[in-house]
Amino acid sequence: MVILGGGFGGLAAARALGRASVRITLLDRRNHHVFQPLLYQVATAGLSPAEIASPIRRILRRQRNTQVLLAEAAGVDLPARRVVLADGSRLAYDTLIVATGVTHSYFGRDEWAVHAPGLKTLDDALDIRRRVLLAYEQAEREEDADRRRQWMTFVVVGGGPTGVEMAGALAEIARHSLAGDFRRIDPRSARVILVEAGPRVLPSYPSTLSVKAALQLERLGVQVWTGAPVTALDEAGVQLGPDRLASRTVIWAAGVQAPSLGRTLGAPLDRAGRVRVEPDLTLPGHPEVYVIGDLAVLEADGRPVPGVAPAAMQMGRHAAVNVLRALRGEERLPFRYVDKGSLATIGRSAGVADFGRVRLSGFVAWAAWLGIHIFFLIGFRNRFVVMFTWMWAYLTFQRSARLILGSSGGARE
Amino acid sequence: MVILGGGFGGLAAARALGRASVRITLLDRRNHHVFQPLLYQVATAGLSPAEIASPIRRILRRQRNTQVLLAEAAGVDLPARRVVLADGSRLAYDTLIVATGVTHSYFGRDEWAVHAPGLKTLDDALDIRRRVLLAYEQAEREEDADRRRQWMTFVVVGGGPTGVEMAGALAEIARHSLAGDFRRIDPRSARVILVEAGPRVLPSYPSTLSVKAALQLERLGVQVWTGAPVTALDEAGVQLGPDRLASRTVIWAAGVQAPSLGRTLGAPLDRAGRVRVEPDLTLPGHPEVYVIGDLAVLEADGRPVPGVAPAAMQMGRHAAVNVLRALRGEERLPFRYVDKGSLATIGRSAGVADFGRVRLSGFVAWAAWLGIHIFFLIGFRNRFVVMFTWMWAYLTFQRSARLILGSSGGARE
Repeated sequence: MVILGGGFGGLAAARALGRASVRITLLDRRNHHVFQPLLYQVATAGLSPAEIASPIRRILRRQRNTQVLLAEAAGVDLPARRVVLADGSRLAYDTLIVATGVTHSYFGRDEWAVHAPGLKTLDDALDIRRRVLLAYEQAEREEDADRRRQWMTFVVVGGGPTGVEMAGALAEIARHSLAGDFRRIDPRSARVILVEAGPRVLPSYPSTLSVKAALQLERLGVQVWTGAPVTALDEAGVQLGPDRLASRTVIWAAGVQAPSLGRTLGAPLDRAGRVRVEPDLTLPGHPEVYVIGDLAVLEADGRPVPGVAPAAMQMGRHAAVNVLRALRGEERLPFRYVDKGSLATIGRSAGVADFGRVRLSGFVAWAAWLGIHIFFLIGFRNRFVVMFTWMWAYLTFQRSARLILGSSGGARE
Repeated sequence: MVILGGGFGGLAAARALGRASVRITLLDRRNHHVFQPLLYQVATAGLSPAEIASPIRRILRRQRNTQVLLAEAAGVDLPARRVVLADGSRLAYDTLIVATGVTHSYFGRDEWAVHAPGLKTLDDALDIRRRVLLAYEQAEREEDADRRRQWMTFVVVGGGPTGVEMAGALAEIARHSLAGDFRRIDPRSARVILVEAGPRVLPSYPSTLSVKAALQLERLGVQVWTGAPVTALDEAGVQLGPDRLASRTVIWAAGVQAPSLGRTLGAPLDRAGRVRVEPDLTLPGHPEVYVIGDLAVLEADGRPVPGVAPAAMQMGRHAAVNVLRALRGEERLPFRYVDKGSLATIGRSAGVADFGRVRLSGFVAWAAWLGIHIFFLIGFRNRFVVMFTWMWAYLTFQRSARLILGSSGGARE
């Protein structure tokens, strides 16, 4: 059998089948699994890439029935039961689990991508880190006050968990980590603005927590602009309806878009291109193909399953169970989602948490978030190093990965 | 005054002038200082970039008389006493310290650079890491035995300390870190070949230590080919006179070449373009300009000063002393080099050390190397994290930074 994608869903499925008598080939176009909830920490120079990622081969090294291949899947040839790779070659399967995930959406304005990078991969995170750090360097060299202000204005588009975490971390960099390192500019005067098209941040959370999150953001120095949809965007700033916000650094944390591979599955798609699956996670009419994780759309117990890491892991394990049941000739079971709650952090020692009846905010939510994230980081070494890095950052306000790497390498206009 | 370069030399000069009543502007085209002796550890996935580098601004943050600018210097206008920046702007100086360092040399065959990257910057190191890890991934997917062998052959050109360390680490990856992670290939069968044009490796060391280093390399599984000058090089391998070595991964660790900026100093240059300086480290005829570090050529006590980090730091401190003496109207002093010995490591728990009368090899040399390098790493956090990472790697044979990042992102031929 073949698994496409080594994210939370694909990895959970592969692991659940580790002792089964099936031969598994797991394909990913990257050699590493990324702990996505902490990507924003790499983007804001708090952690190094290797601290939140591990080679997929290493994670699965002891699983002798599994082979990991670095390759990009372009589509699926359902009648021939073959995965079509980007280089044109094909890979046969008897059972297929599609877990490629989704990317962000510019709502049809893909030309915005070059000015406002999104945050889905480690390369994205390093690109954002470079832009943010370079903006301060440019501001330090800039003589003109207006242009300096433009370099020192950071806009985050999208008020979901990623946008909120990103904005909080950016404010923290400005107010603490960089303060004192520059001579001409005062990083504390940098503006961080979180723009959200809808009426409140964290729309998937209870509204009381949205209010608390907005308050905590404001306290950190983030300006929260709700009801502000982006209508235009270029290298000099964003247009929000009639308003113009001059900024050289815009980060995109909005929208969801499925990869084009989803269209080759011949199933009904939602507006974002995600695949509607049967209750047992299989493709309609193709019980040998499972779609799991963020790419899958389904309702469980009458409510849509959210596109979050715990849901992807549960789907991965459930698909594995159904694969084994089908092999034994047993009926496949419908997927049931167990909501264990949601957590978002807002800078240093603030956050919100929704565990159903229990709702937390402030330091307690932040501490819960920290513990849970460290616990789920793959590998003991990473857990330890991240814990130490955070402790260090907490005590000293320093961010340890403030390196400008790649492309230009130096400051060019 | 202006200092060009935030390497060992420039930083040592800036620090030595930290309490002097001079206004310093330090320029570097990167925002970080790199601990170059450990670059090969980043290139071989043992350490993360942030573990061997710190932002220059952070290092100098408490030094209120110093301003750090991210900018690239293109040349020096000596009569006008101005540094010419890459973007065309100019920066006036009264005193100038040039500490830009050197890069590797392809001996006039710059077209080789694309096939055989050198190792001078963090970006170089990440590029090499990507190539090495991708080669194994390609080998795992390759059906043809000859081409598989080509992917699994790693050539290091140049038998100096960097080449020796690089080759040792590559052999270690193959024999330990990756062993067991692949299904079709056995990484232990990878070949690592160190080619050196001269008659022995580590030519700057006593010949007894060269012999010991070669033996230790062979024991690690590295093939050492001495007397083998590279005559041609392309993406499929290297030509060594009449011999042809098929390899998809060639790493360049040979030659020295000064940046073009050196030619704008109007001083006599050596063959590599390095600047011949007066005994007091100033430019002939320009006592207001100092050239230090790898870019400077001079003899002290009748022997050429080697291009190593301790020499650069000593020159930086000496230039600072002379700057202050000149300000007080005192005579400048000639530079004297204190040779504290040389150390090279060869993979895990082997190495050679030359402390003049005391010569070490094997585990003792490796332990000395480890202690000295951790001691000199800038910042407590880095010292601690690197120590922990190494201890972990030593106990588990794991390399923690095995990430393929950047450019293609996936496997393409």
